[in-house]
This record gives sequence, structure tokens and C-alpha cells, in this order.
Amino acid sequence: MNNPQSSLPHVVIVGGGFGGLYAAKSLRNSPVKVTLIDKRNFHLFQPLLYQVATGSLSPADIASPLRVVLSKQKNAQVLLDKVVDIDSAAKKLIVQDGEDVNYDMLIIATGGSHHYFGNDQWQEDAPGLKTVEDALEMRRRIFTAFEAAEKEPDLAKRQALLTFVVVGGGPTGVELAGAIAEIAHKTVVEDFRDVDTTKAKVLLFEGMDRILPPYPETLSAKAQESLEKLGVEIKTKTLVTDISNQTVTFREGDKADTISANTILWAAGVKASFIGRVLNKTTGAELDRAGRVIVEPDLSIKGHPDIFVVGDLANFPHQGERPLPGVAPVAMQEGEYVAKLITKKLQGKTIKPFHYFDLGSMAVVGQNKAVADLGFAKMSGFFAWFIWVVAHIYYLIEFDNKLVVMIQWAWNYITLGRGARLITGKTALYAKTEVPNEAKENKVDKLQERELVKS
Amino acid sequence: MNNPQSSLPHVVIVGGGFGGLYAAKSLRNSPVKVTLIDKRNFHLFQPLLYQVATGSLSPADIASPLRVVLSKQKNAQVLLDKVVDIDSAAKKLIVQDGEDVNYDMLIIATGGSHHYFGNDQWQEDAPGLKTVEDALEMRRRIFTAFEAAEKEPDLAKRQALLTFVVVGGGPTGVELAGAIAEIAHKTVVEDFRDVDTTKAKVLLFEGMDRILPPYPETLSAKAQESLEKLGVEIKTKTLVTDISNQTVTFREGDKADTISANTILWAAGVKASFIGRVLNKTTGAELDRAGRVIVEPDLSIKGHPDIFVVGDLANFPHQGERPLPGVAPVAMQEGEYVAKLITKKLQGKTIKPFHYFDLGSMAVVGQNKAVADLGFAKMSGFFAWFIWVVAHIYYLIEFDNKLVVMIQWAWNYITLGRGARLITGKTALYAKTEVPNEAKENKVDKLQERELVKS
Repeated sequence: MNNPQSSLPHVVIVGGGFGGLYAAKSLRNSPVKVTLIDKRNFHLFQPLLYQVATGSLSPADIASPLRVVLSKQKNAQVLLDKVVDIDSAAKKLIVQDGEDVNYDMLIIATGGSHHYFGNDQWQEDAPGLKTVEDALEMRRRIFTAFEAAEKEPDLAKRQALLTFVVVGGGPTGVELAGAIAEIAHKTVVEDFRDVDTTKAKVLLFEGMDRILPPYPETLSAKAQESLEKLGVEIKTKTLVTDISNQTVTFREGDKADTISANTILWAAGVKASFIGRVLNKTTGAELDRAGRVIVEPDLSIKGHPDIFVVGDLANFPHQGERPLPGVAPVAMQEGEYVAKLITKKLQGKTIKPFHYFDLGSMAVVGQNKAVADLGFAKMSGFFAWFIWVVAHIYYLIEFDNKLVVMIQWAWNYITLGRGARLITGKTALYAKTEVPNEAKENKVDKLQERELVKS
Repeated sequence: MNNPQSSLPHVVIVGGGFGGLYAAKSLRNSPVKVTLIDKRNFHLFQPLLYQVATGSLSPADIASPLRVVLSKQKNAQVLLDKVVDIDSAAKKLIVQDGEDVNYDMLIIATGGSHHYFGNDQWQEDAPGLKTVEDALEMRRRIFTAFEAAEKEPDLAKRQALLTFVVVGGGPTGVELAGAIAEIAHKTVVEDFRDVDTTKAKVLLFEGMDRILPPYPETLSAKAQESLEKLGVEIKTKTLVTDISNQTVTFREGDKADTISANTILWAAGVKASFIGRVLNKTTGAELDRAGRVIVEPDLSIKGHPDIFVVGDLANFPHQGERPLPGVAPVAMQEGEYVAKLITKKLQGKTIKPFHYFDLGSMAVVGQNKAVADLGFAKMSGFFAWFIWVVAHIYYLIEFDNKLVVMIQWAWNYITLGRGARLITGKTALYAKTEVPNEAKENKVDKLQERELVKS
């Protein structure tokens, strides 16, 4: 690469999510050459992905091309490729399509994907929500269900078509369930002639004794109240034991039961990226049970002060009882910290261990309600939602002026509309789907896994 | 269907494009029951599809859910299904998923798809632009080409990656070529570090002696001048004789030649929907060479005054030397005419034969230039573009308030940005593609074709 700065230390960042991108941006004034590698050409604003899945926003509304974000940052370049292996002794990365990439310092920020806890066969029936393709597949299933119900003369089948099960009562599950209930009971009511969409059932399953388990109890209760008002039926202490043939088998407390549901959405588990296992192989880095890399207080890997892990792939156990949660603010702060550490290190200085400054947690429940725990204050209802909107707009426009999203939101808010409810990507109207991208990707992961085991 | 209006005459419309949707809307005050059948759940504003293919707009920006468009029209209902056969003796339609649909009057508005003139094997190398999926596939190929060029050390291969061939010099081909030249020579220039995107070649092939052949010669010349300023190389009197292995073989006048191009886009031919052949079988309707149905002066089929064909599937030869062109204004006016005819007929009245009122033709050449032939005036440049914008916004917001599109356009205009340049839908970064939806659909068409032949 004919880069005039090639004599500078080369910082390679893998993954253009919140962790990787904040690291890259924070290195803008440092005397380094930065290469950001991602297999996608855009940064995805994942906290809003559920709005794509439920037809409020388009993928481009919440995605910023990485090259545009880093266009003006002259010490940075973007490489569209997939890292398949790391050689920490030779300090280089092996990528899928191009030549090997040498690094002086490495920041790994590859996050994670869905976790079916050993039941990967559930994926076809119950897709998760991590990628743009996942969101479009969810959108296709949700809106196709109403179309199929409109034509279905058999009452039991019609009810199954109008039954939506969301597995997992964390923020994503809560936001999905609330949005689907609103679609069924408000948005599309006037659009169908033969089917009464207000009869749709939306169920939210959670294994713990309340939804939003990491939140304060009062907020869990508020969220539950809001969701129930929207018509969501919440089942806590409920574990899914099987998903097949559009039927969910579950255990609610001691009671086993089944429900027929055409649309089953998975928001329950997150699995660390396979790069965790690559790091384990090449550096001996310790992994936790979810496959996350247990990092040092400065986010480096033990014995490898030139390799850092940030974001959802990192298990940072040095603060509080549990590792830091896999949320955007943690990833951002970790990315910024590592950039600062590298900059100081090049000046021969050291900095204090990483400390996460908790800005709080929020989740939307319905069109204009949310729950928010800001540490100093807990709130719910419209005001919490307003804070949610302001915070999300602030971060959304940081990389890329997504002015249009605000206008789209304002418009949706006024009209209760969902202009992006297109059913795309499949010819068959409601054929069972293969979730082609994820499936392929998992195949790649499995192959790599096998290779790792072999090597 | 428990419809209180079921004793009213039942008008069934097949296809929710401009022809079908204008027919449905125009029947809103008529004493009929209207059923609109489409295999997609949205109306697509096709004149702007090239802007999705080139990353300016998102699919939802130019698509309106049919149910939303007809939500308030109480005498209309929407059915998401695919018509596979017509029984004109029993006056019913056979659909793919649901029960047969009986009709009293039938309006067919199913349009057409790409035509490779007997070379369907070219489709994989040179996708066309008819559906949302087509546009996303084009977008993926265009933006992936730059990514691949950035990594390609071999100069010849790099040049092939930076070569874009658009086949067909009609409005779609002109608009695509202009947009791609702008992307390469302006939008992405600052975003790449190793590749000089201004070296990209954009070629536009046209078989006739000038681009935009149906337009006045002065406008063809103006369009050519504007495109050449943007860096498009135009080859007229040029016929493609083969497309394979990312190589286009062509004959320019008497000279045969080839060019290596990673991205080849097809904008050359339109084939009538297979419903034309279904009509031919069931009613004996005469088809032209392109498969379009030759209609009577009132747009009905000879001997079948209860069946009408409107839009791109209709060949209306009663006005001028050639049949009316396959453009949105023709379809709209035909749809409105048939609705009016049906309304009058129910009152025992007749109306005059259909007459197309030509509002003119327009094509965009670049960010803020267009050519327009309004009959009474021919114009080009910024003013023509301004008229184009106003006309398109007028029609775009007719069904659905696409306020956001205007703001997106204004924003793109100011920033020269293309916020929707996401590479989606494929895991492999630049694997050769299967164009899965269209391919499948063509298979269905072929199957149906065979069945028709058999029966």
C-alpha cells in the first residue's frame, strides 16, 4: 500500500461496530496508521435495528458507510474483508480475500451473534436480530403473517398466523414485542378487510422472574405494565424447550405447554464471535463460557500487550460483580480507552486501568413510552421516551448526518405509520425460509472451527 | 369473504403498478366491489428504481404498501397472491396460494420483466432492473466493485473491476450510466486510499444510432453531451453479441470487439408478463412479438368486453404509427380510462375510445441535469431537471406522503452523498451471484409456460 505514513506504527482494528469505530476515530490525531477491517461496508446502529425489523425505518437510515465515516481521517483506511485467522507470533492477520495484513498493535472488536444454546436447528423457525438481513427477514415474516391470515379460512390456522412469540425479555425482546403489538392492534387494523388483527396474540417469554432483568425492579414492573396495556402477554420464569414446525414448547414454572405460532423471534442469547477462539488458539487468551475473551484491566490480552479486545467480545470482570454488559456505551468507551492508551504509550506514558462510566440503560415500550435508569434517576413513560429519542439521535448523527431519520420518526409518530413495511427478498409468499446469509455464515464459522480444532 | 357489498359487480384487478392502482383508485365512487391482486405487498415507483440501484434512496422511499394506499377506500380489498391461470369461460382466476377468485370484470395490469432476446444465460452476468431485489443486487455489484479494486494489485484486473457497462440507451440506461459516472468520479473519490476511482470507465451501449431513440434528436444530442461531460463513453450502433465471464462481446458498426467489465447492467429489453400468454390461451387474444396483448380501442380484448389489459402488457396500436410506449403515464391514463368505462357501462352508457394524452418524456443525466420533451417545448439542463423533480414528487406523494424523499434528495444534492450505499444480501464479498429471486421467478414462468403448452 503506497501510503506515505507507512513508517508509522500500524494499528489494525477488526470490526466497525461501536467499539472498533470509536477506537479508529479516537486515533485521528495520533502518529499511527490505522486500518479498519470489516466484512461489511457499513457501521450498523444496532440499537435501532428492531425498528427496521418492524417497518419503521429502512436499513440505510441506521447504517453509515465506513468509508464515509473515515473519509476525512487521513491516517485511516478501510478494508472490506473477513479476518479468518491471526498469527500473533508473526503479528499478522489472515483475511479471506486479500493479502495478509501486518500489524504493530491490534484491536479486536468483532462482537457476537445469536446463541441458541446448543439448539442451532431452532434458527430457521426463530430467527435472531443482528444483521440488516436478519431485520429484513423478521420484517418479511411479521408482515407476511397478516397477509396469510387474511386469506386463511381455517380458524385455528388463522390464529397461529396471528400469534407472535418473542423469546427473551431483554431490551431487544421488549422493543420487538411492543412494536409488534402496536402493529397488530393499531397500525394495520384498517388495512385488512377479512381479518381482525386486534385478535393477534403477542407473547414475550423470559426465563428470569421479570422482564429486563438487569434493570431496577420498579422499571421492570413499569415496562411490564406498558407492554400489557399494548396487549403483550408476558410469561416470566418460562424456558423454551423446543421450537419446531411453527410450534413452541416451553416450561412455565413447573408447567409444560405448547403454542402454535407462525412468527417466532429470537432475542434470547448472544454468542461471541469466532475470533475469540482464534485468539485463544494463537495467544492462549482465556475465554468465558459464552466464548468472550477475558481481558486485563487495560483491555489487553494477558501476555500480549499489543492485542486489545473491546466491545461485546470482551469480558471485563474488573468492575462490579458481573462482567460489563454487551451494550453500545461499553463498547464506545472501551474503544476510546484503547485509542488513548496507544497514543500515550507511543509517548512513553501509561494510563490508569479502564473504568466504565455507566450512563444508564433504556428500553422503548411502544410508540412513545420507555423506561430509563440513569443511575441518579429512574423514570418511565413519555419523558423517558423523550430522553431515549434525544440520546439516540445524538449518537446516530455523530458519524453521519441522519437528519432524515428524525423526520421519519416525527412523521411515523404523527401518522402511526410504518412506511417501510415491505415484504422483500422471497418469491414464495410465505414459504418457510432458509435464513440464507446467517446459515452460510454459520457454515463458514463451523468450517473455521473445525480448522482450528485440526490445527 | 363476508363483504356487505358482495352483491355488487366484482371488478378484479391483477397487478398493483401504475395501471392497476390508478384503475382501483378511480373506481372508489363506483357501485362495484374491487379486489386488487398482487404478488408483492407494495406499489413500486419504478421511475426512481435506478436511484435505489445507485445508493441514493432506500427501497421503502419509493414503495407504498398497497393496503395503505387503499386503506380508506371501503369498496376495495387487497389480496397478496400470484395469479397463475385464468378461466375466462367460468370467469375466475386461479391463484398460487388461495382459493379461486371469481370476477365480473377483469383488468390485467401485470406489466413485464427483462428480455435478453433469447440469451437468458446473460442474466447472471448482466442483471436487469425491475424489482427492489434487482436494484439491491445492482447496488451491491456497483459498490463492491470499488471495494475489490481497492485490494486488487493486478492492474488489468483492477481496470476490469473499475469498468461498468450499461447495455441499452433508453431512459433507464441513461440514468444508470450517469449515476455510476458520478459515483466513480465524484462521490467516492475521497473514500479510497489505494485506488483512483476517477480512472473508472463507464460505457453505455445502444443499438440505434443515438441514445434515447424515441426522443427528438436535439435532446439525444444534449443528453449525450451531458453524459460525456460526466465521463460516460457512449457507443451507438453497438450490439451485444455475447456476455460471459465478465466479458462483453459486441459489434460496433462493422467492427467486433470485447471488453472486460466486472459490472454489466442490462437496460435493453422488456418482455411481457406471462399472463399475456395465459390470456392468449383462454380468450384467443392476439399477442405481438414482444408478448404484449393487442387490445381493442376501448382496451378490452376482442370478443371479451369484460376483460381489459392496461399498462406495459397492452399493445394499443390505435394512435400513431407505433403502439404506445411502456411508460407510467400511459399506464395511469389507461387504468383511469377503464375505470371510467366500467362506471359508465353500469349506468348503461358508453364512452369514446381511449386516447393517450402525451405529457412528454424526461430523463435525468447526472445530479442536476435532465432532458425533457414536453411536446410544446424541448429543454435540457438544470431547468429540465427541476421540472423532472417537481413532476416526480407530485406523482410520488399522490399515494403516500413521501415527504422524506424530498428531504433526502435535498440532502444528497447538497452533500453529493449517497447514504444508501450499503452492500447487503450476500456473505461472500464479491462472489458471482445467482440473482436468486428473478431466477426462481423465471423458473416458475417457464413451468407455467410448459403447462400452458401442455394444456
